[in-house]
Amino acid sequence: MALIVQKYGGTSVANVEKIRHVANIIANHKKDGDDVVAVVSAMAGETDRLVKLASSIMDPPDERELDVITSSGEQVSSGLLALRLKAQGHDSVSYQGHQIRILTDSVYSKAKIKNIDANNIKKALSIGKVVVVAGFQGVDDDGNVTTLGRGGSDLTAVALASVLGADSCELYKDDVDGIYTADPGICTKARKIMKVSYEEMLELASLGSKVLQARAVEFAKKYKVKLHVRPTAKPKAEGTWVVEEEEAMDSMENILISGVTYDKNQAKITVTQVPDQPGIAAKLFSPLADKGINIDMIVQNISSDGLTDMTFTVPKSDFKQSIKITKEIAKKLGAREVVSDDKISKVSIVGVGMKTHSGVAQQMFNTFAKEGINIMMISTSEIKISCVIEQKYTELAVRSLHDSFKLGKKHGK
Amino acid sequence: MALIVQKYGGTSVANVEKIRHVANIIANHKKDGDDVVAVVSAMAGETDRLVKLASSIMDPPDERELDVITSSGEQVSSGLLALRLKAQGHDSVSYQGHQIRILTDSVYSKAKIKNIDANNIKKALSIGKVVVVAGFQGVDDDGNVTTLGRGGSDLTAVALASVLGADSCELYKDDVDGIYTADPGICTKARKIMKVSYEEMLELASLGSKVLQARAVEFAKKYKVKLHVRPTAKPKAEGTWVVEEEEAMDSMENILISGVTYDKNQAKITVTQVPDQPGIAAKLFSPLADKGINIDMIVQNISSDGLTDMTFTVPKSDFKQSIKITKEIAKKLGAREVVSDDKISKVSIVGVGMKTHSGVAQQMFNTFAKEGINIMMISTSEIKISCVIEQKYTELAVRSLHDSFKLGKKHGK
Repeated sequence: MALIVQKYGGTSVANVEKIRHVANIIANHKKDGDDVVAVVSAMAGETDRLVKLASSIMDPPDERELDVITSSGEQVSSGLLALRLKAQGHDSVSYQGHQIRILTDSVYSKAKIKNIDANNIKKALSIGKVVVVAGFQGVDDDGNVTTLGRGGSDLTAVALASVLGADSCELYKDDVDGIYTADPGICTKARKIMKVSYEEMLELASLGSKVLQARAVEFAKKYKVKLHVRPTAKPKAEGTWVVEEEEAMDSMENILISGVTYDKNQAKITVTQVPDQPGIAAKLFSPLADKGINIDMIVQNISSDGLTDMTFTVPKSDFKQSIKITKEIAKKLGAREVVSDDKISKVSIVGVGMKTHSGVAQQMFNTFAKEGINIMMISTSEIKISCVIEQKYTELAVRSLHDSFKLGKKHGK
Repeated sequence: MALIVQKYGGTSVANVEKIRHVANIIANHKKDGDDVVAVVSAMAGETDRLVKLASSIMDPPDERELDVITSSGEQVSSGLLALRLKAQGHDSVSYQGHQIRILTDSVYSKAKIKNIDANNIKKALSIGKVVVVAGFQGVDDDGNVTTLGRGGSDLTAVALASVLGADSCELYKDDVDGIYTADPGICTKARKIMKVSYEEMLELASLGSKVLQARAVEFAKKYKVKLHVRPTAKPKAEGTWVVEEEEAMDSMENILISGVTYDKNQAKITVTQVPDQPGIAAKLFSPLADKGINIDMIVQNISSDGLTDMTFTVPKSDFKQSIKITKEIAKKLGAREVVSDDKISKVSIVGVGMKTHSGVAQQMFNTFAKEGINIMMISTSEIKISCVIEQKYTELAVRSLHDSFKLGKKHGK
């Protein structure tokens, strides 16, 4: 008998039929003797509809009121799932953020959870109820409604699992059945990963495998909540476990790297021949940061004749504004020129295994060289190596790395 | 400078355009120096949509969860109106039932208000904010979401006006511009009443002029909250004031009766030749009451030979079930037979003036006699006389009474 926190996304509760399916999954767990807390997102499309409605009245909408409006989506879906469970004979109760007091700070639309009072939930579980919690929402100290940001229901589920000391936190997905070694859309040999560490998952998530909210994974890592990414359509199938590094390494498969990801949503800007003085980076990047532009990779070439080239990437959506700002600063700094390119792609390999294995970077570069793919920028971390390449080579790069690191078959078997 | 509580129904906030119009009405009051608390219903159609959705999952839906689901409608509209006010430069804040703690009992879907903590509202008003309150909803002692029943937003507004000591409670209506002396649809001479007493309004409301929720009027009467029923479309026009009897009488117009109403939704059942023994009424009506059937009028004829005829009316929707139950009891009681008729109509005249004037009933009966309308049942109260007649004469009856009591022109002028 286990206590399981489950999270169902918007597509999983999109209509009456799908809500019934979710209730069946929960009913099966109950039959197995498990206690279940189910966290739900708003029915698919509902949050978008509400944001659009609000924006048609005030653009951008006041964030306090926007949170009041959007949180209604989870209120409805949580009530509906509780109804469905009751209709099937499983006593159930829904809770909103203000009822179990999911206490957050007051940063509307991206609030952080400070505390959860799990007493009501524990009481309900102790008398056999299935507890359905509205995801995404909380309240601040003054009782104002807050929301946790897009994908916030993942965070609600992980936080609840932590507070309740749940045995696991299952994240049911409608569009994927787990985490893959690469995007199956471009790499037919991509294989579902059985276990991955929190750190790897974070790198995989932020690099484009948008399966889990990064903050939820960070939270899970901090409080050691075991995550299980599972397909809603096949609720008995094992998905991917996201666990601590040691446990992830235990499974014989994680010898070197876990996956290959790519990101086509970056653009690259280079400022050439900047006078290489202390503080030059601050001068260049502060105005961009002030505008909320998120700079990802930064590469500075070795200085020659007191001049240096500075290259960095920004999200494509901020590309034009970034060029404008950069040109202004470049002029002030006495740089030669600003060149830019938005036909790029960032391809990365991720794996805790590379901590203890040398030669991984070399193998990546060799693979690109063999395919004639030119590397424009390189950035490395403990468990990740990223290369910026010409966008047209993205699929080729992913496939060849996948082959080179033998991700298509289970290692050690 | 006054403090005004305003209530806007679902049709008044049905879309972005109408919400803008409501914001303009409020803005004009602010310009005049008034403080405003606005109570809103869900956007027109939204509550029905949510009830339908819930019922498609569980029928009838569990009431706790239904309240969670339906209350989301007011949550959205309150947020939208606050947004619109902000967009127009008026600082505003929305409050849900759990935020100002509209404390109710735990009778889901028809909860009664026990207490309201008005501190948050007072604070917000004191710094110039327009306060928008989600109508219809509250929370019980355990923080469960409750709703006040259909038309419950009227009650929210009246209760808030009472707690805040507001100068008046304005109830904006989209479909009517006040209370009329008769249904304008069948009586072209019907005239808007300037002032009416709570008692009269209650009789007018329950008799079919479904303009205000009866509980809201009762609440207003108890706490002496002045109501002002006004048209949303013409916000500067005076509507109808619902006030204390003395004040209503002050206005020279209320000499005799205030209005003529009718109700076509009743049906009539007669049990003939029932042995006239003590306890016969209890035996007859208890089984009907047990089924939740609401008996309206009861008439018992004078007994002859120890036998009596008993006639009563029930809502048309309960007609068939009532006949079935009545036949069973009639048999047990040894009555002769059960005859029924659903082609009836109840026509009533209402007015505090009849308390002090005799001859009102007579004038009513004479009017019917002159028109050849047969009276089947009669029932009287202090301020109301109702007659059951053949349904086909309804319009004729209303018009002739309206003429007879000279409701078409202002009295004393």
